[in-house]
Amino acid sequence: MNRKITLKQIAKELDVSISTVSKALKDSPEISDDTKQKIQAFAKLYNYKPNNIALSLKNRKTNTIGIIIPEIVHHFFSKVIRGVELVANQRGYNVIIGLSNESFSKEVINMEMLANGSIDGFIISISKETQQLQDYHHLTATINQGMPIVMFDRVVSEIECDKVIVNDFNGAKNAVEKLIENGCKSIALITTKDYVSVGKLRTQGYIDALSEHNLTLESNLMLKMDDTLDYEEHLDLLESEITQLFKSNQKIDGVFAVNELYALSAMKVARKLGLSVPEDLQVIGFTDGVLSKHATPGLTTVSQHAQQMGEKAAHLLIDKLESENTDQEEEYQTVVITTDLVERESTK
Amino acid sequence: MNRKITLKQIAKELDVSISTVSKALKDSPEISDDTKQKIQAFAKLYNYKPNNIALSLKNRKTNTIGIIIPEIVHHFFSKVIRGVELVANQRGYNVIIGLSNESFSKEVINMEMLANGSIDGFIISISKETQQLQDYHHLTATINQGMPIVMFDRVVSEIECDKVIVNDFNGAKNAVEKLIENGCKSIALITTKDYVSVGKLRTQGYIDALSEHNLTLESNLMLKMDDTLDYEEHLDLLESEITQLFKSNQKIDGVFAVNELYALSAMKVARKLGLSVPEDLQVIGFTDGVLSKHATPGLTTVSQHAQQMGEKAAHLLIDKLESENTDQEEEYQTVVITTDLVERESTK
Repeated sequence: MNRKITLKQIAKELDVSISTVSKALKDSPEISDDTKQKIQAFAKLYNYKPNNIALSLKNRKTNTIGIIIPEIVHHFFSKVIRGVELVANQRGYNVIIGLSNESFSKEVINMEMLANGSIDGFIISISKETQQLQDYHHLTATINQGMPIVMFDRVVSEIECDKVIVNDFNGAKNAVEKLIENGCKSIALITTKDYVSVGKLRTQGYIDALSEHNLTLESNLMLKMDDTLDYEEHLDLLESEITQLFKSNQKIDGVFAVNELYALSAMKVARKLGLSVPEDLQVIGFTDGVLSKHATPGLTTVSQHAQQMGEKAAHLLIDKLESENTDQEEEYQTVVITTDLVERESTK
Repeated sequence: MNRKITLKQIAKELDVSISTVSKALKDSPEISDDTKQKIQAFAKLYNYKPNNIALSLKNRKTNTIGIIIPEIVHHFFSKVIRGVELVANQRGYNVIIGLSNESFSKEVINMEMLANGSIDGFIISISKETQQLQDYHHLTATINQGMPIVMFDRVVSEIECDKVIVNDFNGAKNAVEKLIENGCKSIALITTKDYVSVGKLRTQGYIDALSEHNLTLESNLMLKMDDTLDYEEHLDLLESEITQLFKSNQKIDGVFAVNELYALSAMKVARKLGLSVPEDLQVIGFTDGVLSKHATPGLTTVSQHAQQMGEKAAHLLIDKLESENTDQEEEYQTVVITTDLVERESTK
């Protein structure tokens, strides 16, 4: 494949920053003659052609941030957006939102559309399909074009950029340990299939907590839901799976669910089966949702601080956009937002 | 003010369609010589200059729809977006979303940004501040530029465009009549201040239902909340107002609330005051929210069919964008989505 060499590749090859390369190619007086000659020669050798889109982007600041999220009917993502909006407004930026609907191709289309001069940078949580396909070329291409990306929640270790995550593993582990402390002996897990990165990490937290407390890991206590279905529209399916779980394992006295809907459905099924929450069954979910707060009994949850994630992501992106210290462009941070266990009535 | 004459004004003045004017000015063979001469003379007389943005928009189809909504942490709006997305995807369009955060200036900025070549048309529900200011120049300017708008839910009678609304008046009236049929004698209303168009219409439905059933309208049974506050963040304030309402009017046996949060708060306050729902107090809300479904007891609500609103709005907009029959460009529809009363456990 006869690929064009990029600014980034030149920078890597010569062990300088992208901005140094960019300045050298523009014959900037900021760069020493020695470095300029080396970079210009290298660029000539490899037939470097400036990327016009990237150049026009560099020249035209839109003061707009693009957010790409998998879905909109989801309290977590809307809270993240609120956080981004808050900081963006404070710092003089506008926000526009594209939805991937959990589809790889929609994610790519949306990013290409917005990257084409509408925005200065992206805040993104990738779609489930992108996670399954493990195809991140659109992210790489955007970054190589000189447009910064901040990933949140569903992040990818292969992509070098700023990231904001919650400690899913620890959050889950703490939740399960709370159930153990509260006397639960047989704790079920309701989670997603493993390709969803956060589901996987929360599942590992569950496994680790059981193991550290010498509780046997029983695969029949782990219900892994197919997360491509919209369970809000198919509550009956979700509930019948959980009913099955409870009926086949009558000793279950605790449930850790990796999201709010699974947790609330577990409480509902328990009620139908004549089990009292928290007396017979203690339940903990993982979310910032409003349902947890308004449920009866109120649901104990691992709070993800979604708004705080959005605020942090916006600060990271705008810092990068406004950074004068261009030699540090290549330094990326991963900020871990600590989860809290919000105790309500679904645990003792 | 020395305003430039627009295509639309020429069209209105000469009683022809905008597209006829546009075609005449381009000397199109589709238009009769007589009409062309008349239009060209008029345009010359009034020094008409083509709007470059509008022209470039006309020439460059983005196949993208812009949605402008007041807030994102709101199940109604996210459901509308889901409806728009569904139809847009089916018909080969992409969707991007701008948030006004209930602010007039943010609404204007977002529309200007997106109208500048990113999208083909808008689907919009205006901000509370825009409703208060009654300043719709940004909507008029967009339409005059040749970019179609479909308004939904919070619409403005002064703006000529396609609209999708629910019958707020009838929905509210039916809900209050349900309470009356169920034996309620003293029905409280929890609503917003009157500048919110949907709040006002729902309030009128309440008033009409009482009046038709010869129940006295008591102003102290009507709690009008300041809707500029985010009550999700200030539940205590909302609850203390409702507590006050119930304590000062102990005969209240029914509540109609114009949204989900007010209705759920009423149920919560009732529980705290030792009232049973629905035995002592019957409650009906107005929403499509998830909270109503998951609440205990489940909340009876007027369902707005938000997703259906979004689907209809998308069809109207795309029909307009793809319309060949340009002479009908000036015909606008207002589609009224019928509400349903979804009966759950909060009514007898």
